Amino acid sequence: MLRWHPAKKRLNKFAVPRLRRHVPALLLACLGTAACSDEPLSTAAVMEALEETDWRQPDQGNLLYMRLPHGEIIIELAPGFAPENVANIKTLVRDQYFDNLAIIRSQDNYVVQWGDPAADEDQARPLGSAAETVSPEFYRSANGINIAVIDSRDAYADVVGFANGLPVGSDRGRVWLTHCYGMLGVARGVETDSGNGSSLYVVTGHAPRHLDRNITLAGRVLSGIENLTALPRGTGALGFYESADERTTIVNIRLGDEIAKEDRLNIDVMRTDTAAFADYVQSRTYRHEEWFVDPTGRIEICNINPPVRIN
Amino acid sequence: MLRWHPAKKRLNKFAVPRLRRHVPALLLACLGTAACSDEPLSTAAVMEALEETDWRQPDQGNLLYMRLPHGEIIIELAPGFAPENVANIKTLVRDQYFDNLAIIRSQDNYVVQWGDPAADEDQARPLGSAAETVSPEFYRSANGINIAVIDSRDAYADVVGFANGLPVGSDRGRVWLTHCYGMLGVARGVETDSGNGSSLYVVTGHAPRHLDRNITLAGRVLSGIENLTALPRGTGALGFYESADERTTIVNIRLGDEIAKEDRLNIDVMRTDTAAFADYVQSRTYRHEEWFVDPTGRIEICNINPPVRIN
Repeated sequence: MLRWHPAKKRLNKFAVPRLRRHVPALLLACLGTAACSDEPLSTAAVMEALEETDWRQPDQGNLLYMRLPHGEIIIELAPGFAPENVANIKTLVRDQYFDNLAIIRSQDNYVVQWGDPAADEDQARPLGSAAETVSPEFYRSANGINIAVIDSRDAYADVVGFANGLPVGSDRGRVWLTHCYGMLGVARGVETDSGNGSSLYVVTGHAPRHLDRNITLAGRVLSGIENLTALPRGTGALGFYESADERTTIVNIRLGDEIAKEDRLNIDVMRTDTAAFADYVQSRTYRHEEWFVDPTGRIEICNINPPVRIN
Repeated sequence: MLRWHPAKKRLNKFAVPRLRRHVPALLLACLGTAACSDEPLSTAAVMEALEETDWRQPDQGNLLYMRLPHGEIIIELAPGFAPENVANIKTLVRDQYFDNLAIIRSQDNYVVQWGDPAADEDQARPLGSAAETVSPEFYRSANGINIAVIDSRDAYADVVGFANGLPVGSDRGRVWLTHCYGMLGVARGVETDSGNGSSLYVVTGHAPRHLDRNITLAGRVLSGIENLTALPRGTGALGFYESADERTTIVNIRLGDEIAKEDRLNIDVMRTDTAAFADYVQSRTYRHEEWFVDPTGRIEICNINPPVRIN
């Protein structure tokens, strides 16, 4: 595990050293000393200074295009963290398993979930060539995974940061994706291998981090999350919809590489292994916009959302 | 500041000592020793064992009944933390200021905000007997405030817990309400006294704790938050709605003591200064439901939502 990757470049304006947590944020104003004449960067300034190399283009083969009647959601899968689950999800998608299935649940301040409303009944849609059970991928060995560590006191993990563009927690040689807003998970029953990707959920509330290491996360929503989060909440237990009338039909889900090139979204995601991303995090940690009277000087992993741009 | 109030009673089954954070959660199973034969309590068991004295009935004079065309939201004001702002909000409500105004903003993973769409224009609705500017109440002196401290490593505050039923952070003799999901805030401009309660917001996403101590919080939604959170997101900058068509009209907002007794909601909120609440927090910290394979052993302040019951 590394702290920030060796910086190939530093923005000229980034002259503020990373302060230890308990140094009063007031010091950031530098009290007019010559040693610290540059202003700390605002997020707007960081974004403006980004270079093309600070962005990455997700592999279209890892993008889910989820089409609902009222809009589209783009989700980036995370084969680096959940290879078996992602492979099974891709099999299901290529088999057009999800087409005309439904959003089955919206529980306020928790998750939106989709799949086969008849999954537990005789008329359940068959999984075809996909597996019925998949090994849980609740965490991985930290070996070989570079974490850009965030200087944060986290309630749930000894270390937090970003790896392969996604928020992670880590301890005792393990690393796992964290249940931040917009993360995609693989619903499961009591048996840990009962999740197979035929029912998926997205976090739509305050990060339910107690789910970390208890269920497989497999990606992150990049675009269109409002098409899930603004759905009416289900009136049944746990926010499940109680009738077909309440459910939203899934028109279809496709992988980017199944879609005609002209129909693919030209989408970039900010890299998380760059000096520019460190500047971005710094700008979210010390809020120097005029509006703030107390710039905080602290940050929590799920309040850092790697920016996305659609060209 | 106290840790938990002196317990007047302990549930018989609550035989598990509070473990220090770094003791592996496995130990909770007690390894079959006689010293610790009782099972840790599930949340369901804690809720089942509650007595009437574990609940409180909010003062109807502190409840906002916010009526939208599609449903009602009940909000408890927090005069103990923001007395001047709460007083001005009450003046506005008694003057029927909000009637036929609108939800003006829904920004995904952030806030829903309401007020006068024409607030910055000539035809703005006058504030009547309410004040135009109100002193900021971003934090208070911790003197005289009893905090039921939560054993959590918090990213933003040295100490977190509950006081007067609400989530708080504390350091250096200060105490402040934390921006958890469902908290009510007093929108303001750049001037710190520019918030007056004529525009209010509710947190509808991952807790934006960087707002703590930068803006006045004045209450918490007790019921009906889904009537706010499932609204379509605004398409303008910061999630503001761009036209009257997009906005939801506020039918009216009333205080509970303005409403006929038979129309008041009979609503109870779990007290946070009891042994039962400590048990509740413990049950959310160590998740022993069968589904969990890793009971976590950790908790974050905004993942503790004091339960509400409507009779």
